[in-house]
Amino acid sequence: MAIKYPTPKKTTEKIINRANLGMTLESDIEATNQYYLDKQIAVIYKKPTPVQVVTVSYPARNKAKIVEAYYKTPSTTDFNGVYRGYYVDFDAKETNSRTSIPLKNIPDHQIHHLKRVVDAGGIGFMIIYFASYNQYFYLPFDVLYDHFQDSLHGGRKSIPYETIKKEGYPITFGYNPRIDYLSILDQYVIPGLKQASACK
Amino acid sequence: MAIKYPTPKKTTEKIINRANLGMTLESDIEATNQYYLDKQIAVIYKKPTPVQVVTVSYPARNKAKIVEAYYKTPSTTDFNGVYRGYYVDFDAKETNSRTSIPLKNIPDHQIHHLKRVVDAGGIGFMIIYFASYNQYFYLPFDVLYDHFQDSLHGGRKSIPYETIKKEGYPITFGYNPRIDYLSILDQYVIPGLKQASACK
Repeated sequence: MAIKYPTPKKTTEKIINRANLGMTLESDIEATNQYYLDKQIAVIYKKPTPVQVVTVSYPARNKAKIVEAYYKTPSTTDFNGVYRGYYVDFDAKETNSRTSIPLKNIPDHQIHHLKRVVDAGGIGFMIIYFASYNQYFYLPFDVLYDHFQDSLHGGRKSIPYETIKKEGYPITFGYNPRIDYLSILDQYVIPGLKQASACK
Repeated sequence: MAIKYPTPKKTTEKIINRANLGMTLESDIEATNQYYLDKQIAVIYKKPTPVQVVTVSYPARNKAKIVEAYYKTPSTTDFNGVYRGYYVDFDAKETNSRTSIPLKNIPDHQIHHLKRVVDAGGIGFMIIYFASYNQYFYLPFDVLYDHFQDSLHGGRKSIPYETIKKEGYPITFGYNPRIDYLSILDQYVIPGLKQASACK
């Protein structure tokens, strides 16, 4: 009779990245937000994609079936919510470029929305994913806005990778939470806000 | 020849209410939010109703037509945003009752969501409209939550009009903004928050 040995536990650390998990940037952020929600850390949701409903049919009692509808352009970013009493608002973009993220990847309405948010005292930013390097960055809104303004006055139409490395903050990809962007707020953003205004 | 006298300006104040304007509570709040946005007072949006898209057809180039979709139950309230750096989150309900608002008008998931929001340092509330009196109230989340908890332990399943009058704050209906709920935050809510914690 063959003796059945217990399977040894793996001790080698597995390198976790998106390729392993087969996920998209958006679903990784949604999983991160779910983690924050479950652990009672923050309440941050993705907004539903707005849909213009034209025709609804009622094939069964109490069951509305939309049979004609169209996607609408949202006026805001995808994600917002509350963390430690702060209003948080952001979107996430990825690029395959090794050198920069093109500004055309970021719709104007998102920039205008984030400008209004920051002016109203909220925390606005972008999460930028450089797929070639498998690197995530927290890009503060003011850095994005400076480049956007420059681009309107003849400046370059993209933000260089090197600038993002220098003026943004790297976010380590992990198992849970996957993209821990709130740790950047704790370390770099909220202390600065407190210094700027002792009390609101 | 007849002399044309200038038409005298009306000096009687017109009583403005929803009946005059033929609007719904939701559209009045959306108009209010648009006013706040235009005047750069606050950035508060209604979230789109979530839709589960099943089938999309492409009758014309670049034009996606949704041909099968269903409404999903949202996990949150309808409205959120930022005002003076504070995260604001609420929903609006109306009733024809002269005596109370039934708690069944407020879905459990909205109460749980607002609880999480308040625990994360946000400002959560309800706007309650008593159609019979044409009166609007700001109902702080803690008052709602106390009644919700009571109802789970055998207490009454509604919040009396008299309680809302006493523990909520009346919001005057106006022309623009129509339902100026942020004035309640200025007067009653934010000063209390500042006292509770000098700085976040």
